[in-house]
Amino acid sequence: MCLRDILSRVKNGDMDLIEAEKQIRLYGYQSVGKIAKLDACRMARIGVPEVILAEGKNAEDLMDIAMAQLKSEGRAIITRVSDEQLGALRKASKVEWHPHARVAILRKKKKSSTDGVVGIIAAGTADIPVAEEARIIAEEMGCKVITAYDVGVAGIHRLFSELSKMIDAGVDALVVAAGREGALPAVVAGLVDVPVIGLPVSTGYGAGGSGEAALLSMLQSCSVLSVVNIDAGFVAGAFAAKIANKAREDKK
Amino acid sequence: MCLRDILSRVKNGDMDLIEAEKQIRLYGYQSVGKIAKLDACRMARIGVPEVILAEGKNAEDLMDIAMAQLKSEGRAIITRVSDEQLGALRKASKVEWHPHARVAILRKKKKSSTDGVVGIIAAGTADIPVAEEARIIAEEMGCKVITAYDVGVAGIHRLFSELSKMIDAGVDALVVAAGREGALPAVVAGLVDVPVIGLPVSTGYGAGGSGEAALLSMLQSCSVLSVVNIDAGFVAGAFAAKIANKAREDKK
Amino acid sequence: MCLRDILSRVKNGDMDLIEAEKQIRLYGYQSVGKIAKLDACRMARIGVPEVILAEGKNAEDLMDIAMAQLKSEGRAIITRVSDEQLGALRKASKVEWHPHARVAILRKKKKSSTDGVVGIIAAGTADIPVAEEARIIAEEMGCKVITAYDVGVAGIHRLFSELSKMIDAGVDALVVAAGREGALPAVVAGLVDVPVIGLPVSTGYGAGGSGEAALLSMLQSCSVLSVVNIDAGFVAGAFAAKIANKAREDKK
Amino acid sequence: MCLRDILSRVKNGDMDLIEAEKQIRLYGYQSVGKIAKLDACRMARIGVPEVILAEGKNAEDLMDIAMAQLKSEGRAIITRVSDEQLGALRKASKVEWHPHARVAILRKKKKSSTDGVVGIIAAGTADIPVAEEARIIAEEMGCKVITAYDVGVAGIHRLFSELSKMIDAGVDALVVAAGREGALPAVVAGLVDVPVIGLPVSTGYGAGGSGEAALLSMLQSCSVLSVVNIDAGFVAGAFAAKIANKAREDKK
Amino acid sequence: MCLRDILSRVKNGDMDLIEAEKQIRLYGYQSVGKIAKLDACRMARIGVPEVILAEGKNAEDLMDIAMAQLKSEGRAIITRVSDEQLGALRKASKVEWHPHARVAILRKKKKSSTDGVVGIIAAGTADIPVAEEARIIAEEMGCKVITAYDVGVAGIHRLFSELSKMIDAGVDALVVAAGREGALPAVVAGLVDVPVIGLPVSTGYGAGGSGEAALLSMLQSCSVLSVVNIDAGFVAGAFAAKIANKAREDKK
Amino acid sequence: MCLRDILSRVKNGDMDLIEAEKQIRLYGYQSVGKIAKLDACRMARIGVPEVILAEGKNAEDLMDIAMAQLKSEGRAIITRVSDEQLGALRKASKVEWHPHARVAILRKKKKSSTDGVVGIIAAGTADIPVAEEARIIAEEMGCKVITAYDVGVAGIHRLFSELSKMIDAGVDALVVAAGREGALPAVVAGLVDVPVIGLPVSTGYGAGGSGEAALLSMLQSCSVLSVVNIDAGFVAGAFAAKIANKAREDKK
Amino acid sequence: MCLRDILSRVKNGDMDLIEAEKQIRLYGYQSVGKIAKLDACRMARIGVPEVILAEGKNAEDLMDIAMAQLKSEGRAIITRVSDEQLGALRKASKVEWHPHARVAILRKKKKSSTDGVVGIIAAGTADIPVAEEARIIAEEMGCKVITAYDVGVAGIHRLFSELSKMIDAGVDALVVAAGREGALPAVVAGLVDVPVIGLPVSTGYGAGGSGEAALLSMLQSCSVLSVVNIDAGFVAGAFAAKIANKAREDKK
Amino acid sequence: MCLRDILSRVKNGDMDLIEAEKQIRLYGYQSVGKIAKLDACRMARIGVPEVILAEGKNAEDLMDIAMAQLKSEGRAIITRVSDEQLGALRKASKVEWHPHARVAILRKKKKSSTDGVVGIIAAGTADIPVAEEARIIAEEMGCKVITAYDVGVAGIHRLFSELSKMIDAGVDALVVAAGREGALPAVVAGLVDVPVIGLPVSTGYGAGGSGEAALLSMLQSCSVLSVVNIDAGFVAGAFAAKIANKAREDKK
Repeated sequence: MCLRDILSRVKNGDMDLIEAEKQIRLYGYQSVGKIAKLDACRMARIGVPEVILAEGKNAEDLMDIAMAQLKSEGRAIITRVSDEQLGALRKASKVEWHPHARVAILRKKKKSSTDGVVGIIAAGTADIPVAEEARIIAEEMGCKVITAYDVGVAGIHRLFSELSKMIDAGVDALVVAAGREGALPAVVAGLVDVPVIGLPVSTGYGAGGSGEAALLSMLQSCSVLSVVNIDAGFVAGAFAAKIANKAREDKK
Repeated sequence: MCLRDILSRVKNGDMDLIEAEKQIRLYGYQSVGKIAKLDACRMARIGVPEVILAEGKNAEDLMDIAMAQLKSEGRAIITRVSDEQLGALRKASKVEWHPHARVAILRKKKKSSTDGVVGIIAAGTADIPVAEEARIIAEEMGCKVITAYDVGVAGIHRLFSELSKMIDAGVDALVVAAGREGALPAVVAGLVDVPVIGLPVSTGYGAGGSGEAALLSMLQSCSVLSVVNIDAGFVAGAFAAKIANKAREDKK
Repeated sequence: MCLRDILSRVKNGDMDLIEAEKQIRLYGYQSVGKIAKLDACRMARIGVPEVILAEGKNAEDLMDIAMAQLKSEGRAIITRVSDEQLGALRKASKVEWHPHARVAILRKKKKSSTDGVVGIIAAGTADIPVAEEARIIAEEMGCKVITAYDVGVAGIHRLFSELSKMIDAGVDALVVAAGREGALPAVVAGLVDVPVIGLPVSTGYGAGGSGEAALLSMLQSCSVLSVVNIDAGFVAGAFAAKIANKAREDKK
Repeated sequence: MCLRDILSRVKNGDMDLIEAEKQIRLYGYQSVGKIAKLDACRMARIGVPEVILAEGKNAEDLMDIAMAQLKSEGRAIITRVSDEQLGALRKASKVEWHPHARVAILRKKKKSSTDGVVGIIAAGTADIPVAEEARIIAEEMGCKVITAYDVGVAGIHRLFSELSKMIDAGVDALVVAAGREGALPAVVAGLVDVPVIGLPVSTGYGAGGSGEAALLSMLQSCSVLSVVNIDAGFVAGAFAAKIANKAREDKK
Repeated sequence: MCLRDILSRVKNGDMDLIEAEKQIRLYGYQSVGKIAKLDACRMARIGVPEVILAEGKNAEDLMDIAMAQLKSEGRAIITRVSDEQLGALRKASKVEWHPHARVAILRKKKKSSTDGVVGIIAAGTADIPVAEEARIIAEEMGCKVITAYDVGVAGIHRLFSELSKMIDAGVDALVVAAGREGALPAVVAGLVDVPVIGLPVSTGYGAGGSGEAALLSMLQSCSVLSVVNIDAGFVAGAFAAKIANKAREDKK
Repeated sequence: MCLRDILSRVKNGDMDLIEAEKQIRLYGYQSVGKIAKLDACRMARIGVPEVILAEGKNAEDLMDIAMAQLKSEGRAIITRVSDEQLGALRKASKVEWHPHARVAILRKKKKSSTDGVVGIIAAGTADIPVAEEARIIAEEMGCKVITAYDVGVAGIHRLFSELSKMIDAGVDALVVAAGREGALPAVVAGLVDVPVIGLPVSTGYGAGGSGEAALLSMLQSCSVLSVVNIDAGFVAGAFAAKIANKAREDKK
Repeated sequence: MCLRDILSRVKNGDMDLIEAEKQIRLYGYQSVGKIAKLDACRMARIGVPEVILAEGKNAEDLMDIAMAQLKSEGRAIITRVSDEQLGALRKASKVEWHPHARVAILRKKKKSSTDGVVGIIAAGTADIPVAEEARIIAEEMGCKVITAYDVGVAGIHRLFSELSKMIDAGVDALVVAAGREGALPAVVAGLVDVPVIGLPVSTGYGAGGSGEAALLSMLQSCSVLSVVNIDAGFVAGAFAAKIANKAREDKK
Repeated sequence: MCLRDILSRVKNGDMDLIEAEKQIRLYGYQSVGKIAKLDACRMARIGVPEVILAEGKNAEDLMDIAMAQLKSEGRAIITRVSDEQLGALRKASKVEWHPHARVAILRKKKKSSTDGVVGIIAAGTADIPVAEEARIIAEEMGCKVITAYDVGVAGIHRLFSELSKMIDAGVDALVVAAGREGALPAVVAGLVDVPVIGLPVSTGYGAGGSGEAALLSMLQSCSVLSVVNIDAGFVAGAFAAKIANKAREDKK
């Protein structure tokens, strides 16, 4: 029984208050309707679309979930897609494919657009796939994204120039992806007043080489920055877009 | 030699271009002036005041640094102050003391104020000291702060009510402090479209009890949130204030 | 506004369905009443009383929370109490003190009793404090508790005899506390058909000596058992009592 | 020499007391009979059937062990079966195959049934294989199993509804499987008075992504729950069935 | 009921075979007699005396256990004794005190002696307390012990000379204690055909400084050696004595 | 220049004392001869043959080293041999192949034999490959080896019987291989006065499942035992054989 | 705008001092020219050529970067090259291939040469690939390199002889590569006054077997040595060459 | 028997070649003389004085070792001295006390001096004690030391200026001490051609706060640098002095 039904019955005297309270307590939001509706509600509520992690799903299950989401949302964003999974998706639908990030998008509705601006910086070429995942999700959340890749600490002069362009473009938040020792986000956060999100990447080898050195280094940074999990491009991009969209919404 | 001096000499023909380029390359920002000026510059640049970590400093050194900062900045914020250090500070200056957070502030200038609004939530009573450190720094950065303490997952109903108040007050960013299993930030991030910063706290015991369970749990969260280091109240508060102040600045 | 109020207003036509649904959605269980009531509700719901962890709380806060709980619940159970905290509690109330477990109980209502029977076994003398914490909470949840301490693998003959007594007494669940290599729970679980809860204890030294060896060993056990965190006597005791009380309730 | 033989000889005066005591001490349960009998004895004793872990066994050894168990027990349960191993098993016997859980069952005797009822909940689709392993073993132990999959914290409304159904069905114990941050078991344990067993799953990536975040989070949980090892579906299912069968047995 | 009783009854026809078998199966070694006897039995069986770890025991409990053991065994060996515990012991008994090792021995019977010879080597002066613990237990097990302290890798010439003496004295086993990088046991094991037991010590600082570097280094050693836990002087000494006593016993 | 040459020259007056001392100091054992000789010397000195770890070597290098050793020693023992490496070895030589242990032996000389007796116990079938590696090396060192496989804690009665046989056979040392929680070595060491070497095996899954649980558990054991690295069958077997051979040598 | 341009404009009065200072502050080294020039500058500045890590790069990207570097520098050094990547490189250019180290060099300019001398020692044959990587980079930096491979602690006599040769050749720095327990660098550093760089290698198995034991052991070493990351042959070789080249430069 | 004695005897025909070879093999450097001589020899050999780590030594032992070293070497350097230990030392000797580094020096001979120049940089004030330890040992090894403290990444302009001074002064090696995220050594190594030794410091809190973040970050650095253990000021200073002294020696 859906919530409005319960309320209707109360209004009509078909259900007494004690029973109604119990129903709501026990069953909660049980009968709000179909699953598709719920997702829409969630998106409106927290401003982030659901994303499907392909890793660890078999091709069939992945397909079912993706097609369901495409149907209900008009779009399905799928990350960490293997070649085999990609093949399966392509048989069922037209796929917008981002090869570096390994992200597939199925789309029926046009992308909408907010005024949010997000900057994404990658320290080295090996950090680009993760940075790209961040870019794509931020764009799917309506933001304009400016990227600057391969501007690590070794070539700090390029960094200054790129940062300058980003600030001129009015970025609301910055994602800085870095592997190895992960020093770049702290450097950036020491230069600008824009919120910086550190995105550690699992490039490297030996002790700390799966991204732990980068993660710990960002957590210990003397600069003020916040951090997401290793290789969590999606989270970093979505968080930055959340900041940007919120700031622009406030402005209106 | 300061940068303007170099440029003056170039203009006056007292230094040739090759030499000037070398000077700037090698010496960089060397001679920008006195240390006090530099700090002011940093604050203007990144929007976060310097904070003195008392832990691991002897009373004398702490005092020297604090008094120098008070002089140059009109304010010195000192975190993790021991009773002994507090006594020493009190001999030298009037001290604004926050006992839960163990933060001392020396102040000559009035606090300024931005329009930023920050919400700070603590899961349990044991998380309050770290949450308070976040609150104080956000206020020192000019934000209005709304707090809701002891609203852990166990008493989820209180959470809904407090969140509702915060959203009505127009919070630009939320800090959610939680120890033990650290589940609260993910719950909050699943309910609102405001950016949520997870602040893991070192409450707990046994495996993962020094805050690692909370930290890992926040990093793995299915919700979109970003994270700071364990017990890093200062970083969380400053990051939230950076978001809030940036958003309000954008709005103007 | 409390839930029944909302329902009343709907019934009386003072609130339309759309608004009522929104109220319930947004505010959830917000206005269910006073905090004391909520706790009672929680206890009825999940069958476990709230317990106050004294560790990390200052004496004042601890006192306030304890007295509030005593008032609302007729009982306050406080674990990991320091000598200083104990002194403070004793000034404010009569205290039932369990020195090995370092548990203090403030009590106004008589202990109630279920038919549940819980067995608690400790491998060595060093494991007794944690085992005692388990015993006390299980008794507070109304169970009869049978204990057998210092029956480690070294003295396996004593174990057989004690187990035999426990089974004759009809235990519904067994807590087995063990430090060092933590082998005892697996041995017990290989001998009886009663559910066994492994309780690792932080006795030991060197590699794995803070309870990790015991914890990992229990998690890897070939026998079927479940585990709680290192030194989590309260959780183990409460879980065993939950099993016992549920089984007896089923029986009725 | 078997135990009864020793006792016979003592009775007949063929062995003196000193010698008999020594025999029993040294040789223990040496000659209790054939291996098949022993297993039957173990099952009767602890209420859990032996399960064969296929992982790390070559196809021949696996086959031998499985066929021996099938012969002696009338049933062989084999977990973590690879495609190659499955092929080998199918050549030798009819195989009941559970593809999600990768569990193979060889069966000569009919499944028996107890009155125990077990509920199994999986947070996400990626947690289903491990949850299925739990389901199968609980059913093999005679329990009725009710499942609710993909009811993670994100869709908490579905959870309420499913939990409600389970309680109506009289579940004796609940297994809750969750990867990533592993928050679901704590949420469930905060809602019902049924014992909840947390089952951490190795879904996730980055720091804590092999199930450690979920495991630590469950160990640190403020709710009362017990835990099994990462991906240990068999242990969780068998433990829940042990609780359920014991409770029902008590009832009789 | 003790084992011989059961056998007596069988012999006398007071107990039938079925019942006797059940008694022995269920109750095991239950009624073998008083605790003191059991310990004696254990010592005879495995050749190692029980040792009391003082750490984590309060003075009273420690005293009770020690006096009981002194009474039943004629000797009580207590390790890791604090000054406070030592004071308490001295009030109750004459104490043989080994200050470096912090071992206390209460003794009523004379030390016995085997022909076993054990060599104990300590790399640095900081490793001596742990090496001494090994020496004392080996002597209590009847062995002659030859020690060579402060013969680390840095002074390898001394090592050769000391090793030579030990081999001339016919050592049956060698304990080599080393902290920091723990290289000495591997060096020794590469020079002699006597079994070498590596004993890692928790001297050092920084990464791996609690003995982990030494432990891992010994486990990874290219030489053939076996290892005990960090600071486990007792285990190393007893294991070496077990080898020595067994070898001498074989010889007879 | 070899040592005897230097001494010859001194004797003949062709080298003065100062020079000779310097030669020996600086160059050490430099010129003792060919590599083959050195190995022989090492074997005589420490009683353990060199063993070639195939893992991580390409087939050519492996072949060269193996053939050189076969030539100089009359035997080459190669562990952790892949199928590809085995193929390469078989092309060059007759190979004695142990499939469970994946050990290849090339042999020109007959195996010699000492009087040493070693017992090897494996807890589960998955532990057999590592146990077999221990068996092979102990036999190559001349010992008689008695094995008992699949006698884990679950079937403790079989253990008693097998142990009894081993003791009757006069074992000088016992290797006990165990994965998962690794409890078996402690149980065995609590039953016999023969030195027990714990051999942790990397069977298991989840937390501690790569052998760490077994390793830590053995290091923390209350029984007296020593330990080798995870899966280090060679080290365990060689160490046991060293004990056995030394004991028998003493006896003569 | 490049730095000299700014200075030119200042000199010519086309830019005032305030503006020039701002330009330099904000844009930094932005417009120094093309990327190729910058690299040259970096090499001159820190004395180490850029090296391309092939691992984790797709063949196309790798090719582009390599060809760009070859063009601008006259040389491209590529490490950790897979067979597939090697094939791609060979299609585009003549490749100098070092199979053990898996390093590819593309070269248009002749190798230059300094007077620096570097010694490289590898403990075992498994350590040779990493040692070779160190050798190649040191040679590319102009040093003469002397190598001694397979001179582990087990064959210490060979070490003395090889060290002696190295010192006679005037080595300025020594790289010592070692896996397993990593003891060799400490031994070498205890014998010579040349700076020793420890290079831990990921050979080994079980606990600490991915190079952690070697790394920790080197960090804990009583001898004075410095360390690079596990398998970081490039860093060790370049660091040694930096010492050697600096020393020789000083000498001139 | 000392080496020359053996040689004498050989020369005189008092010892045959076989016996002499055996003596030298077995006894090695056994009888090289008195201990004092050996130390002198070691210093001459590796260029680093022995340093006494006070931590973990009782006052008496410390005193004995220090006075012995003072006597034999004319100097004793003692690190990590507690107040209590300092008091004891002061009773026995005049003490040169360095309060920040907590290093005590007892001295009879004048400090000697080489031409080596070492630069020592500390990122923050909290890193100064460890940096000071490095400075003192480098000076005791005869080097001129130039320091620059509190020049962390946050105040990068000061760093450029200080580095410039150091290079003008001809530093042969640089030690860079840094806690928290440990980024400074990499920055410095990216700017100069002098070898840079990273010295991680245990300042910080939360995850990675005991110096692991700094250590891992330095090991992962893209710049070429080598590293010592956390807080190992002595090792870093001595290693830098070894480079400097070797370079200057080469020059002569």
